[in-house]
Amino acid sequence: MYSFKNDYSEGAHPRILNALIESNLEQTEGYGEDNYSRKAVELLKQRIERDNIDIHLLSGGTQTNLTALSAFLKPHEAVIAVRTGHILVHETGAIEATGHKIISVKGFEGKLKPACIKAVLDEHEDEHMVKPKLVYISNSTEIGTVYNKEELQDLSQFCQRNNLLLYMDGARLGSALCAQEDLTLSDLPSLVDAFYIGGTKNGALIGEALVICRESLKEDFRFFMKQKGALLAKGRLLGIQFLELFKDGLYFDLAKHANQMSALISEEVSKLGFKFLVHSTSNQIFPILPNQLIAELQKNYGFYVWQKVDEDYSAVRLVTSWATKEEAVKVFIKDIKTGHRV
Amino acid sequence: MYSFKNDYSEGAHPRILNALIESNLEQTEGYGEDNYSRKAVELLKQRIERDNIDIHLLSGGTQTNLTALSAFLKPHEAVIAVRTGHILVHETGAIEATGHKIISVKGFEGKLKPACIKAVLDEHEDEHMVKPKLVYISNSTEIGTVYNKEELQDLSQFCQRNNLLLYMDGARLGSALCAQEDLTLSDLPSLVDAFYIGGTKNGALIGEALVICRESLKEDFRFFMKQKGALLAKGRLLGIQFLELFKDGLYFDLAKHANQMSALISEEVSKLGFKFLVHSTSNQIFPILPNQLIAELQKNYGFYVWQKVDEDYSAVRLVTSWATKEEAVKVFIKDIKTGHRV
Amino acid sequence: MYSFKNDYSEGAHPRILNALIESNLEQTEGYGEDNYSRKAVELLKQRIERDNIDIHLLSGGTQTNLTALSAFLKPHEAVIAVRTGHILVHETGAIEATGHKIISVKGFEGKLKPACIKAVLDEHEDEHMVKPKLVYISNSTEIGTVYNKEELQDLSQFCQRNNLLLYMDGARLGSALCAQEDLTLSDLPSLVDAFYIGGTKNGALIGEALVICRESLKEDFRFFMKQKGALLAKGRLLGIQFLELFKDGLYFDLAKHANQMSALISEEVSKLGFKFLVHSTSNQIFPILPNQLIAELQKNYGFYVWQKVDEDYSAVRLVTSWATKEEAVKVFIKDIKTGHRV
Amino acid sequence: MYSFKNDYSEGAHPRILNALIESNLEQTEGYGEDNYSRKAVELLKQRIERDNIDIHLLSGGTQTNLTALSAFLKPHEAVIAVRTGHILVHETGAIEATGHKIISVKGFEGKLKPACIKAVLDEHEDEHMVKPKLVYISNSTEIGTVYNKEELQDLSQFCQRNNLLLYMDGARLGSALCAQEDLTLSDLPSLVDAFYIGGTKNGALIGEALVICRESLKEDFRFFMKQKGALLAKGRLLGIQFLELFKDGLYFDLAKHANQMSALISEEVSKLGFKFLVHSTSNQIFPILPNQLIAELQKNYGFYVWQKVDEDYSAVRLVTSWATKEEAVKVFIKDIKTGHRV
Repeated sequence: MYSFKNDYSEGAHPRILNALIESNLEQTEGYGEDNYSRKAVELLKQRIERDNIDIHLLSGGTQTNLTALSAFLKPHEAVIAVRTGHILVHETGAIEATGHKIISVKGFEGKLKPACIKAVLDEHEDEHMVKPKLVYISNSTEIGTVYNKEELQDLSQFCQRNNLLLYMDGARLGSALCAQEDLTLSDLPSLVDAFYIGGTKNGALIGEALVICRESLKEDFRFFMKQKGALLAKGRLLGIQFLELFKDGLYFDLAKHANQMSALISEEVSKLGFKFLVHSTSNQIFPILPNQLIAELQKNYGFYVWQKVDEDYSAVRLVTSWATKEEAVKVFIKDIKTGHRV
Repeated sequence: MYSFKNDYSEGAHPRILNALIESNLEQTEGYGEDNYSRKAVELLKQRIERDNIDIHLLSGGTQTNLTALSAFLKPHEAVIAVRTGHILVHETGAIEATGHKIISVKGFEGKLKPACIKAVLDEHEDEHMVKPKLVYISNSTEIGTVYNKEELQDLSQFCQRNNLLLYMDGARLGSALCAQEDLTLSDLPSLVDAFYIGGTKNGALIGEALVICRESLKEDFRFFMKQKGALLAKGRLLGIQFLELFKDGLYFDLAKHANQMSALISEEVSKLGFKFLVHSTSNQIFPILPNQLIAELQKNYGFYVWQKVDEDYSAVRLVTSWATKEEAVKVFIKDIKTGHRV
Repeated sequence: MYSFKNDYSEGAHPRILNALIESNLEQTEGYGEDNYSRKAVELLKQRIERDNIDIHLLSGGTQTNLTALSAFLKPHEAVIAVRTGHILVHETGAIEATGHKIISVKGFEGKLKPACIKAVLDEHEDEHMVKPKLVYISNSTEIGTVYNKEELQDLSQFCQRNNLLLYMDGARLGSALCAQEDLTLSDLPSLVDAFYIGGTKNGALIGEALVICRESLKEDFRFFMKQKGALLAKGRLLGIQFLELFKDGLYFDLAKHANQMSALISEEVSKLGFKFLVHSTSNQIFPILPNQLIAELQKNYGFYVWQKVDEDYSAVRLVTSWATKEEAVKVFIKDIKTGHRV
Repeated sequence: MYSFKNDYSEGAHPRILNALIESNLEQTEGYGEDNYSRKAVELLKQRIERDNIDIHLLSGGTQTNLTALSAFLKPHEAVIAVRTGHILVHETGAIEATGHKIISVKGFEGKLKPACIKAVLDEHEDEHMVKPKLVYISNSTEIGTVYNKEELQDLSQFCQRNNLLLYMDGARLGSALCAQEDLTLSDLPSLVDAFYIGGTKNGALIGEALVICRESLKEDFRFFMKQKGALLAKGRLLGIQFLELFKDGLYFDLAKHANQMSALISEEVSKLGFKFLVHSTSNQIFPILPNQLIAELQKNYGFYVWQKVDEDYSAVRLVTSWATKEEAVKVFIKDIKTGHRV
């Protein structure tokens, strides 16, 4: 049984475990004030090519989202997110639990456009309604699509003109950046107010690096982290991992591999004449397959059946990762072909 | 510079890292539903000698406290804690941030007694005041003292009679259990309603095992964890560690070592005629030393000056751990003696 | 300028002011423990024909909703409401501010049916999503429609079978009960778990009577009220008003009058061939009028333009109340006819 | 049975009820946007002799405190209050329920001094603890004492130097201002960042006027009010009352009367040789009386026994108000004398 269920099925890239072992008995300061964390932050600033940003290392995506959003917003301010947004459906109301409404909008293929936000702003007129304040986007999105530079520039300009914050959930940022051509890590600070670089889904054991770009959002952020239980006593665990991922191109190498593995599958599935729920070049793809074939594949592979399409077809979600073996992918493709013929 | 600042200065016990490496490329389910986490939970139940308990693995102490307490309490219910309690002073208002007041009481040497709680209950009469509902204790306490079985029985009976929940913060539970003679892990479910077994401060990279003993507190707990950002995608990271710590006696071996190291220091410091802020057999000791000696020691050792005692003396906090080297302790003792003579 | 903007434009029914004057210099207990409040609660129990219910008097609708819902729900539990629900759009995120997500569903003419709720339950499977727990309905709804007994029975049975609480926002309950034939006040305790009887929009200065029918929701409710700032020091202000409204049929007389006034307008507007956004027999009606006629009417009348229907027509909201003068209604009707002819 | 239990035992000053009657059938805008509320705000600005302040009318003290403090503070910021502070003991954790810790300090006779606050600031060093941000004082205090101008100037300067907000709970501000000589309403904006003028305890049915002096605290305040259920649909109820209380000197006349009544009692009680828990010139006094005399008085008078002083004596709380009859006071004094002789 080989799993294409998600990109966090395995442990960490071996280099990360080695880095943990090498530093293991060294004594360091606690709570992220150790030298590894400090160096990781400096290194990330170099990779982002910015100095005037604050970077904090947290454990997971939900934790990062809830800590950041509750820190950035006043009690009456609300978040705008696309209907499929992770904070809206798969974080057990974590944002609402900090007191903030999330306004759901329809979006296009998992992405937000200015027009969607404009409609929300037009509806919110006075103090009887929440005040929309922060736009949440995921990149790559929950359905595998990615934003290109122009789309982000449009969103960014719209948000600035309308006094809205723009926040990017980067749980799969590595895959997103490697899945298109014109957007780089160093573009982000001029486009969004805050974003995070996902580690957990790209080779780390745990770890997300939150980057705060807007000056007014930086103050006292470590207080918010501690209050939400997000300051690890052994913060070095996060610092060592990000140091390893970014000291050379490892982070992007891993993401590229994941994307290549999904591209392999996509290509062959297309050749067989199957369609996709949405076009994706990231590490999540959603081919629409005959139910019979799906049943056949489920005998040997783990994956989610995402959505019924019609009586005979359903879309499945296939996720590849830094750890996905090319060999396994090839056997999987063969099994699709075989199953299809049957 | 050798550090006695805390018990989380080093990484993890080497066996833990080995266990991570061995399992690293295995594919597992996410969010704590992997086999390692399941086995760890089963193993812990065996060690606790109870079946009808729920066990959840979380990342850190503040996270565990805030997730548990906010799950256990209704909006108007309050916590009672001793003035030095960790949730009261060193968690940035994490409990209050979930909406609950903590009522501070004086206590005895960092510990609570029924009389302290009784006084609170007597003062809280009606709906104009919060309703005291949960008693928070730490074992070992923040100043190194430990509860013995009788003290816990007294508290437990008092709480039961008064319809109060009793919760034990076990960030340093290993040290506490090894620091006295009559209390064992398997005694706890009959004494408290919930407690946690601290991993971070006893050899794990991260990890606390929350044990919920009272039936009515068990329902839907994973929802609360997810909502607070406490469900790790790679939950195996926690399972593997607790499995390693408890599959033989490693957890207690590490705690005993920590206690032995502090005992070595205590003994010698006593011989030199110095007193202690409070008597402690756990891995935290608070000797009262001359300021001049403290200054001398600070040149080569890291530790916190805890409290000014008089013009010439201050109490320092010395913390030993599973990783503290006996050799380093001996040199430290020598340096105390030398510094003292000077 | 005569206003059909809402049903809280005037002060209170004169009998209420008289009752305040008569009791004014009497000394009473504070915080709702006075004899007037006690008697009002007893009287309401008689009118509802139930003894085993708890009744609390609060100031306004938003306050009542947020106090009740946050008291009834655990942190991970969510509310289901129709898209037009007052708590969803016009209470500035008051429910989310207490930590609870509201799941928005489409509904039918402002009302919920079991099928809408079923779809939500089917989507919510595990701890990565909130747990739907309470169904919020308004009666009459925000667009003037009313539930009949059968509709409520269907909802009630569905909620019971699915372990959901059913809560009725009765800001305009008087109008709702008088706008249909088979549902009475005394039916409600067997249909819903809690509801409130709105005073503010039916002749009181302020005041809503929250009725808690389900045993498990009753405990400690006055604590929640105090915590949310909902216990008035001079609670008598609420007791005296409800006593006056319910000691004879005043409450229903006022509601009937409001409904009759809107019926007068509806009838004439229909005769002129205009349609309505939705059929309503309550005190809120939404006729679709030519924009030119609307502009004409706006010169002398206050009301909200609710929704653009097409290039030439818009729906307006007309609200009548206990205080609406029949004479004013007749002049208004005449002005509609005149404006229409022009 | 005549009550000296509190200053909210009666309804409202008759002039207020008359004002309600006169305006009763006039149609006004809702939610505090009516002309009465607007005029009341303008009038209050004149009385405070300031234009650049924002004034909002709310229903009660707890509601005002929780709405204001949660609006003014970020999640990690805490309140400092004296141990007897109303928000700390008698508001059912309302402030904590909005997520903020209250740090309790000892104070002097119910009042805060810079030294008390300084000690708190010294203890709070980093992100592991909350950030003290707002100093809460009550004037008059919960034990009847009042701040003079110099005391407030000291506090004010200290708070400014330390970047702290200063907030005054003025539930009994009328009595406080009339109980000393050098402090006036118009002094307050230069001394505190926000305060409220209590109506409920000085002749109104309900109503507190929150005055926000600091520019940065003003933004979007009506959103916070709506979110907390503090925007009354019939906001005119508050506007009409404050207009009546402040259009001439009624507010202060009522407060002076209350103070005179307590002074009458104090004077006579002193003559009899009894002492007081604390010296008070406001409408709350705490004479220390023999238990036997207390028992005697309880037969005909309502009041709280506040505190046991020794075996034979207890302090009682006597509260006078705008409605306290001089005749009743005289009989009460006579009864004290008689009871004392017995």
